[in-house]
Amino acid sequence: MDMKLAHTWAKQDETIDDLQCKGLFIIQKDSSFRYGTDAVLLAAYAGAGRRDRVVDLGTGTGIIPLLLAGRTEVHEITGIEIQRDMADMAARSVKMNKLQDRIRIICGDLKEADIILGKNHFDLVVSNPPYMSAAHGFHCSNEGKAVARHEILCTLDDVVRVASALLKSGGRLAMVHRPERLCDLMYAMRKYKVEPKEMRMVHSRLTAPPSLVLVRGMKDSRPGMKVAQPLAIYNEGNDGSYTNELLEIYAGGTANGGK
Amino acid sequence: MDMKLAHTWAKQDETIDDLQCKGLFIIQKDSSFRYGTDAVLLAAYAGAGRRDRVVDLGTGTGIIPLLLAGRTEVHEITGIEIQRDMADMAARSVKMNKLQDRIRIICGDLKEADIILGKNHFDLVVSNPPYMSAAHGFHCSNEGKAVARHEILCTLDDVVRVASALLKSGGRLAMVHRPERLCDLMYAMRKYKVEPKEMRMVHSRLTAPPSLVLVRGMKDSRPGMKVAQPLAIYNEGNDGSYTNELLEIYAGGTANGGK
Repeated sequence: MDMKLAHTWAKQDETIDDLQCKGLFIIQKDSSFRYGTDAVLLAAYAGAGRRDRVVDLGTGTGIIPLLLAGRTEVHEITGIEIQRDMADMAARSVKMNKLQDRIRIICGDLKEADIILGKNHFDLVVSNPPYMSAAHGFHCSNEGKAVARHEILCTLDDVVRVASALLKSGGRLAMVHRPERLCDLMYAMRKYKVEPKEMRMVHSRLTAPPSLVLVRGMKDSRPGMKVAQPLAIYNEGNDGSYTNELLEIYAGGTANGGK
Repeated sequence: MDMKLAHTWAKQDETIDDLQCKGLFIIQKDSSFRYGTDAVLLAAYAGAGRRDRVVDLGTGTGIIPLLLAGRTEVHEITGIEIQRDMADMAARSVKMNKLQDRIRIICGDLKEADIILGKNHFDLVVSNPPYMSAAHGFHCSNEGKAVARHEILCTLDDVVRVASALLKSGGRLAMVHRPERLCDLMYAMRKYKVEPKEMRMVHSRLTAPPSLVLVRGMKDSRPGMKVAQPLAIYNEGNDGSYTNELLEIYAGGTANGGK
C-alpha cells in the first residue's frame, strides 16, 4: 500500500499497521482494541484450506480474516462484528488491502449469525471471543475494549452454539481462549456437538502456567482429543527472545507443532 | 517389614515391593496390574489433609491409600475395588503395613460406593480409573489388567457421578487420566457439579505431548480453573534422567508445582 494515501483510509484517531504478512495492513485505533499474539496464533492454528467457507465470529477490526487471507488460499471469509466502529474499520481494511473478493465484513450480532448467514453451510468457524465473563468486573476505561474483552454482548455458550449452527456436519471450529475457561469451552463444545479434537496450551515460557489455549473441534465427531506439546512464546532465561517456533508462526507457519 | 516373613503375606505368584516411602511395602502380581507413575503423581497431587475422610474409587492393589498413608497424616481412607483378588492383595498390604486403623479396603462395585459408604459424607475422593473406553479394543491378555485399564465394569461418567454423591459440598475430587479423555472428564465433572478448579499436564518431556493430566475439582464450586505449569518426568536430552521435580515428588513432595 502507498502509505502517502493512508489519510484516505484512516480516520484521525486511527493508525494503519503493517501485518508483516504479504504486504497487508490493518486499520486500528490507538485508544481501542488492538490485535495481539492470540489472533496470530489462532490464524496459524485454524487450519483453513483453500475451499473452506469460513466465518469469524466477533471479528473486531478484521484481524483474523486479514491474516487468513494473507496466510492461506482460503477465498470466502465472512467476519461478523456487532460494534459499528470496529466493523467499519474492518471493512475499510478489507478494501484498502483489495480483499473484497475474499473477505466480507458484516456489522451484526454474532448471536444471530446463523440466521443472517445460513445454517449448516460453513466448513470452518473461528473465534477469538471475549475472555472474561461479565461477572468478572470491568477494568476497561473504554466501551469498545470492554465489549471485546468481557462477555457483555455474547457469552462463550452463545459463540459455540452459533458456531455449531453455522457448521455443516464435519465442519471445524477453531478458538483461542484463556486456560481458566477451558472447562466452559469443553462443556459448551460437547453440549453443541462440536467435539473437541485437538488442543494446544500456549505458555509465555514452558516453566510458567499457560496463558492461552488453542482448541479445534469438529461438528458431529466422536470423542477423543489429541493434545499437542506446549507452545512457548519466549525462550527460557530473561533475554526476552522469541522461540524459533513463535518466529516461524509469525513468518506464516502453522501452530500445529509440526504434526 | 521383616522380609523373612514375606511368605506369610504373599501368595506364590505375588511379589512384595518396596514403596520407597516410610518403610511401606505393597503386594502385587507379576502377571497382573502393577502400579505406575500415575498413582504416585495422583497421591502427590490429591492434597489430602489430616482431617479428611478419603475414598479411593477403584483402588486396585491399594497403592493410592498406601501412598496417602505414607505421605500424609490422613487417617481415614477407604479403598473400594470390584476385583476380588486385587481387593484381597490390597487388604493384605494394609495389614502387612499395620495400617488397619487408617485404611479399610472394601471389595465392591464403585458404582454403588455412595450406597455402601454413604452420601455427602466425604472430604476427598481420589481415582485413577480405567483410561480406555470399552469400545477402544482390548489388548490385555489378562482379565485383571483389562478391567483396570478399560471401562468394562465402570465408565468415567460412573466414577464422577459416584464421587459427587460421596462428597460433601465443598469436598474435592482428584483424578489422573489421559489427555485424550480431558473433554470427557471436564464434561462429567461439570455435569455432576464437581467443578474443575485445577489442572496440570504431565509430559515425559516438555517438548512432547502430555501423557497424563491431573485434575482437581470441588463440589458445588464456581467455574474457573487454574492451570499449572507442565510437569516433566524426564529432563530434555536422551540421558533418561528424571527431573528434579519428579525426584522431589517421589521423595514425598507434592505435585502442585510449588504453588
